[in-house]
Amino acid sequence: MADEFTLYGYFRSSAAFRVRIALNLKGIAPHLEFVHLLKDGGRQHSDEYKRLNPQELVPALVHDGRTITQSLAIVEYLDEILPEPPLLPHDAAGRARVRELADCVACDIHPVNNLRVNQYLKATFGASVEQQVAWQQHWIRAGFDALETMLAGSKLTGSYCHGDAPTMADVFLIPQCANARRVKLDFAPWPTIARIEAQALKHPAFDAALPANQPDAE
Amino acid sequence: MADEFTLYGYFRSSAAFRVRIALNLKGIAPHLEFVHLLKDGGRQHSDEYKRLNPQELVPALVHDGRTITQSLAIVEYLDEILPEPPLLPHDAAGRARVRELADCVACDIHPVNNLRVNQYLKATFGASVEQQVAWQQHWIRAGFDALETMLAGSKLTGSYCHGDAPTMADVFLIPQCANARRVKLDFAPWPTIARIEAQALKHPAFDAALPANQPDAE
Repeated sequence: MADEFTLYGYFRSSAAFRVRIALNLKGIAPHLEFVHLLKDGGRQHSDEYKRLNPQELVPALVHDGRTITQSLAIVEYLDEILPEPPLLPHDAAGRARVRELADCVACDIHPVNNLRVNQYLKATFGASVEQQVAWQQHWIRAGFDALETMLAGSKLTGSYCHGDAPTMADVFLIPQCANARRVKLDFAPWPTIARIEAQALKHPAFDAALPANQPDAE
Repeated sequence: MADEFTLYGYFRSSAAFRVRIALNLKGIAPHLEFVHLLKDGGRQHSDEYKRLNPQELVPALVHDGRTITQSLAIVEYLDEILPEPPLLPHDAAGRARVRELADCVACDIHPVNNLRVNQYLKATFGASVEQQVAWQQHWIRAGFDALETMLAGSKLTGSYCHGDAPTMADVFLIPQCANARRVKLDFAPWPTIARIEAQALKHPAFDAALPANQPDAE
């Protein structure tokens, strides 16, 4: 049915976390399918899931008979078919700013730190757990240093990344903050990010999307 | 002036290549600033450039007194302020598909292979040139295997990724093809990608954007 959504995700996946926030903000309670990324070598690599997403990554959203992968594309799609509340501003310059902030996370921090990259580092370079954590910390630090400058230096930043309501920028930033905390990064150099994170986590759409609050949480 | 664009780029940067294609498709000849990524430790790390882009990455587009970074955000912005020819289809499902294809490159292939990641691999894990090339090949192969399945399996694929005119998906795919050829990958497993690449390279907007055709090419 056209009004039914199925989300294929994993509680700890940062990209699925983004989509959960966006769905919550839009007031959608999707049917949930759990794709355990570690059990039995990873369900994302099963033939069944590969038919859904040839990239073998979560999340995937099924709506209206179609599968959409890539969290950026999913969030843009949700915002187009369900315009309220808007996740992008109405002016082109504002939209560019929000997308730019989201892309800093979606392109330059998260994919470099993804599970499959860490698995490759371990297999090919013998990276220890400590080296994998240092790797993750390095790319989050580089990205957050830039994001802090971009957020603190703009009058467009409000209680959220862009004004005083959540946008796509917050949808992407908050899951990355959770990852940063998991690798024990100190947020002292990023007071603006920390302030926005604290604000967002008071919002039920963000709180309900937290990894710990998912049915498949371990 | 509102109709003036300045592009900060580097001939070999795949992300700058995307923006050059989009600008060409929209008929814009920007003022060019060259950010040499290797000379003197990299001009992207200079104080002057960091003020423009705190991420210390190219490209950056200056328009109407504002700087936009992140090639995805730049291409979406250009398509919003200059709607013809459109780089995204008009239906939400089609737009999702095109963004999904572009994001496969923009999120999951390119950033993992970026210069700064290779520099870190060398510095921290002592990765040889051969290991860096193998790393790049690995992530391109994973992404192109998925993209080939997605493109070959859809009736929406035409002479370009989505229909018979260039979209944002081609704007992102073609520079990644150039990177794949630079690391000597065999395109035999990806006949659909190879066919679209050949089609696009006949288009003057793509041809003029090639690294070899830039004023700063070496």
